[in-house]
Amino acid sequence: MNEQMRAVALGGGHGLHATLTALRRLTDDVTAVVTVADDGGSSGRLRRELGLLPPGDLRKALGALAAADDGARWAEVFQHRFGGSGALTGHAVGNLLLAGLFEVLGDPVAGLDEAARLLGVSGRVLPMSTDPLDIEAEVTGLEPDGAVSRIRGQVAVASTPGQVRRITLHSVVPAGDTGTGAAVKPPQACREAVDAVLSADVVFLGPGSWFTSVLPHLLVPELHDALVKTTATKIVILNLVPQPGETAGFSPEQHLDVLFQHAPRLGVDAVIADSDSVPTPARLRSAAAELGGRAHLASIATPGVVGRHDPDALAGCVRDALGATSAKEGLSWR
Amino acid sequence: MNEQMRAVALGGGHGLHATLTALRRLTDDVTAVVTVADDGGSSGRLRRELGLLPPGDLRKALGALAAADDGARWAEVFQHRFGGSGALTGHAVGNLLLAGLFEVLGDPVAGLDEAARLLGVSGRVLPMSTDPLDIEAEVTGLEPDGAVSRIRGQVAVASTPGQVRRITLHSVVPAGDTGTGAAVKPPQACREAVDAVLSADVVFLGPGSWFTSVLPHLLVPELHDALVKTTATKIVILNLVPQPGETAGFSPEQHLDVLFQHAPRLGVDAVIADSDSVPTPARLRSAAAELGGRAHLASIATPGVVGRHDPDALAGCVRDALGATSAKEGLSWR
Repeated sequence: MNEQMRAVALGGGHGLHATLTALRRLTDDVTAVVTVADDGGSSGRLRRELGLLPPGDLRKALGALAAADDGARWAEVFQHRFGGSGALTGHAVGNLLLAGLFEVLGDPVAGLDEAARLLGVSGRVLPMSTDPLDIEAEVTGLEPDGAVSRIRGQVAVASTPGQVRRITLHSVVPAGDTGTGAAVKPPQACREAVDAVLSADVVFLGPGSWFTSVLPHLLVPELHDALVKTTATKIVILNLVPQPGETAGFSPEQHLDVLFQHAPRLGVDAVIADSDSVPTPARLRSAAAELGGRAHLASIATPGVVGRHDPDALAGCVRDALGATSAKEGLSWR
Repeated sequence: MNEQMRAVALGGGHGLHATLTALRRLTDDVTAVVTVADDGGSSGRLRRELGLLPPGDLRKALGALAAADDGARWAEVFQHRFGGSGALTGHAVGNLLLAGLFEVLGDPVAGLDEAARLLGVSGRVLPMSTDPLDIEAEVTGLEPDGAVSRIRGQVAVASTPGQVRRITLHSVVPAGDTGTGAAVKPPQACREAVDAVLSADVVFLGPGSWFTSVLPHLLVPELHDALVKTTATKIVILNLVPQPGETAGFSPEQHLDVLFQHAPRLGVDAVIADSDSVPTPARLRSAAAELGGRAHLASIATPGVVGRHDPDALAGCVRDALGATSAKEGLSWR
């Protein structure tokens, strides 16, 4: 009997949700590796108040992989947000439950595994780091003289009117833990996420907010090294439309350029893009070839919905891309 | 094969927890019917902010009936309270999850059944009413001339330095629902709770905060009528110590007296009390007889812990009391 394809998807937010929704059509063995640099909304409030991993993107990934029936009902409860105008307004129930699991079990991976059981997730949802992280961006266009500004925080970076040039990632150790004020240390990878990348058959990067949800994974040193070292087929899925703010006006090729700038040693086997979102296919093919891969263009957008991938079409394109690469023999998908 | 004994326990807070912990040693078929008049702490904040049933006492009852293993782990998560000094401080995780279930499923009974499945509860936890309720108390001793004061709210009643004489119970319809200011209506019983009482083999009342957790059930008209009408054996379990505040200085007999005052038509088959907590056993026997029942005294306190029943000893005393009543033939317990 053929083994199920082991797929790992790196990202965050709605982009990762799209990849996971497509991948579950192809295999039961999906691991999501999720950014933990969010500082906005319900996640940001929980992070600041309790010092925990921001749970929002983790919750969305769990929802994307939830089983039907009981799992779907719990997924609905997870995604539900309290209304009104009180202390709980805007908090997603799943964020609060994940925060409770993190505190009680003392380990975010154990907490996520418990939540995954509740939602009937057949794969796994992991954080890219077990510490909350901070994004810092070098941005131009904010100062009249062309000077580089430094912007801190996912929300600020994602919504800057300037041009993001480069991001860095830090783990912030609170003042209480070090004795003499807050300290900054390099981000530590989640061990299970590194192992998942190393033992994967195929790894996906994107789509999603490029600087704040996709690239951060490449800036966690051990995760970067695992991505370079793994024998998995590496597939980049490009966005359907540039993100207002961080990648406003970016061409598909520019997305690949900044990927290369942040991780020059990372080869890529395939680049998936929506045909209608690529103005100059030849340029994209050439940019993909520079990373060592091949561009696969297909109609993968949901008609009538701006910026949303169609899960079936995306799954079909992934299947084609895998068929065209030197994927391992003997692997099966649905 | 003998049927399992169908037990229903009415109460709230720690007292109900004690009864449930004892009863699960005797049968798998335990239904908790829980007060929903709490207006303090995490429950009070949720009730005010979201207009939902106060979940705290419901959460405690679920915890008392949770299964071992997975159920116990989830019960621990349910009971966990967030620390710190922010918007979530003091909220129990289970309260937040119950609030989310109530909102998403639109029905507290469905929400409680879902939570019970998660915790592996073999019985059922029900609210005495599906509306949040308010307690009002007539209190003497607060005014120098012996006048009666009216105090509103569970926290205020439970902690009054005066003597509580009588309580009443209201359902408060918020101003938004009636057009012309907030309105008061009689409390409506939870239908499933009424059915549970009517089909029970044995019904327990107490222990617990007498005026604010035990007596309120008798003031929900349909629940009162079901308690009068049911063929179940009715057992009152008395407190180990008088509650500071609402029943400071109350003798065991006075507890039965106020029970009778609030529900004169309610007969009782047995009264269980701790031997060391009854100064004058003859008086208690006589007070129990006036209600139509028999007093059962035994050592049922946990040694060295003030006010906590020992679950095994309490279960043993319940077994004795049931054996001495004209309980139905053919029922089994563990």
